[in-house]
Amino acid sequence: MPEIRQNIISRQWVIIASERARRPDQFKQEGSVRVELPSYVPTCPFCPKNEKMTPLETYRTPPGDPMSSNWRVRAVPNKFAALSAEGELVRMNVGLKRTISGVGQHEVIVESPDHSTTLARMDDAEVEQAIAAYLQRAQSVLDDSRVEHVTLFKNHGPAAGTSLEHPHAQLIGTPVIPHEVRDRLETALGFYDDTGRCIFCATLEEEREEGIRIVEENEHFTAFIPFAALSPFHLWIYPRRHSASFLGMSDEEIPSLARILRRTLRRLYDGLSDPDYNLIIRTAPKESEQVRYYHWYLSIVPRLTKTAGFEMGSGMFINTASPEESAQFLRGVEAE
Amino acid sequence: MPEIRQNIISRQWVIIASERARRPDQFKQEGSVRVELPSYVPTCPFCPKNEKMTPLETYRTPPGDPMSSNWRVRAVPNKFAALSAEGELVRMNVGLKRTISGVGQHEVIVESPDHSTTLARMDDAEVEQAIAAYLQRAQSVLDDSRVEHVTLFKNHGPAAGTSLEHPHAQLIGTPVIPHEVRDRLETALGFYDDTGRCIFCATLEEEREEGIRIVEENEHFTAFIPFAALSPFHLWIYPRRHSASFLGMSDEEIPSLARILRRTLRRLYDGLSDPDYNLIIRTAPKESEQVRYYHWYLSIVPRLTKTAGFEMGSGMFINTASPEESAQFLRGVEAE
Repeated sequence: MPEIRQNIISRQWVIIASERARRPDQFKQEGSVRVELPSYVPTCPFCPKNEKMTPLETYRTPPGDPMSSNWRVRAVPNKFAALSAEGELVRMNVGLKRTISGVGQHEVIVESPDHSTTLARMDDAEVEQAIAAYLQRAQSVLDDSRVEHVTLFKNHGPAAGTSLEHPHAQLIGTPVIPHEVRDRLETALGFYDDTGRCIFCATLEEEREEGIRIVEENEHFTAFIPFAALSPFHLWIYPRRHSASFLGMSDEEIPSLARILRRTLRRLYDGLSDPDYNLIIRTAPKESEQVRYYHWYLSIVPRLTKTAGFEMGSGMFINTASPEESAQFLRGVEAE
Repeated sequence: MPEIRQNIISRQWVIIASERARRPDQFKQEGSVRVELPSYVPTCPFCPKNEKMTPLETYRTPPGDPMSSNWRVRAVPNKFAALSAEGELVRMNVGLKRTISGVGQHEVIVESPDHSTTLARMDDAEVEQAIAAYLQRAQSVLDDSRVEHVTLFKNHGPAAGTSLEHPHAQLIGTPVIPHEVRDRLETALGFYDDTGRCIFCATLEEEREEGIRIVEENEHFTAFIPFAALSPFHLWIYPRRHSASFLGMSDEEIPSLARILRRTLRRLYDGLSDPDYNLIIRTAPKESEQVRYYHWYLSIVPRLTKTAGFEMGSGMFINTASPEESAQFLRGVEAE
């Protein structure tokens, strides 16, 4: 019989299907396209030597002339920004219509000069450089007084919503705290008031005791498949030290995150043949960076199935993979 | 400059993009595949003469022998049901893990014997027969004492999550009221307590006064593009008479819904070349069918763009089409 499980933070219910269930290896993709890509594409705005094809950069490592090509990681404003970097924050309520002017920040972080690579195929030091850029740019976006919240994400592959092959992440700073984020904060606050504990710390403790959904651990982080994973191979990477904000990461934690992120993505890359995925860093809004009841984490969502009318209409999900079997499968994939 | 608009019922924020905006006719698809399909496919479980390929039917019109092939609309249990029709409703809370046994109902409504047709290409009487089946099956699913809520939906085309070509809708009766539905009920209740009005009735009144997002009206229904449409050509069809439940439709309203639904889908079919879409009927949970603050409606979501990491991480959306321009475009498409 299927089982309906609840994500206790988002309160979403997930049907873990049994009639429609597939074995972990049945989610393997047709084969990686990455290995076929060239390292350099003359028309790609994110390839070295094409620095003038993007708006003026906001970040580069190592530091240097903004038009030179010897960078390892680079950040630039999004040329087709969803929000405008200029303009005043204006809120209007007319009748039932609520509007905010579309101001904020939208940046792209180019994670490597190599067009054909991806986080899974980089080395630890390269992933660490990308994470250092995420941190610096997230802080800079939040320094904009109009911005209330930052969402850091990565769309890998066409099914994940990108048409750009060159490895990159994005961040969008919004002038509003999204409802879904508020909702999670409220749930977490309720749990804290009832129990005196962070709901994320409590979840992590329970997962580590049980062990069956853990994919990997190192000194500072734990990667696991959530009990109520919304879709096949949905993964979370939690910092073990309580901190509401991604920006609160210590210098020691950064290399540790780089290593577990690369290894986890490598397991997906080898185990499922480079599936398309979204990667999201969930962090507290600016005004809640210090709270005791919220906890930042990283979420990886392989796009192996499509959501349809049922998910849209109910907000529930159907997952055709067992979280426990998927975790076991990923543990069995060599990560090096 | 882009504009950020709020759906006041779901409280989701949508960025109506300007830098990335496309004109309505740029969303036109490559061309309908429907016209190329045969009317009958020997291996299709939903085609007439293949009645034995499905579980025993629960509905047919006109009534007759369950193995005969002279039906117009037919309903059957889903062979790969997401929830089990047998078994007891058991709820378990172990530590932080919340589970409900996966019981409920999952049916398929075959909307026509013709493999190649779709609601947009049927006539009013045929669509009316399909809606009569939706109503009868929704009521039957809700009669199961384990079921708390029913979601009625249709996935049209591969981008909308279906691999079956034969025109069909589905309904899933869940043993839990989804969080997202609870959330909308709470928002609507708050509005009612503050104003004494149904938030949906108030929205409809404002939309009809303004007129610019209306696509079509008839005696009982209004089709319009929401002010905060989540995606291009996202459409709502609202009944004008207040009723929390789809099951409360009067005999007069059914043909009126059939006509506006067929005409609205026809506008999409001709205007955008048969786009893939999801159709959802949002209705109150069983226990709230009589409430004054909730209102059933029908939602159509063409799958013209992909959601990505930003939407997943923030719960906000980016819509690359102007709701007002899209409505104007659809009004200009001949619906007959």
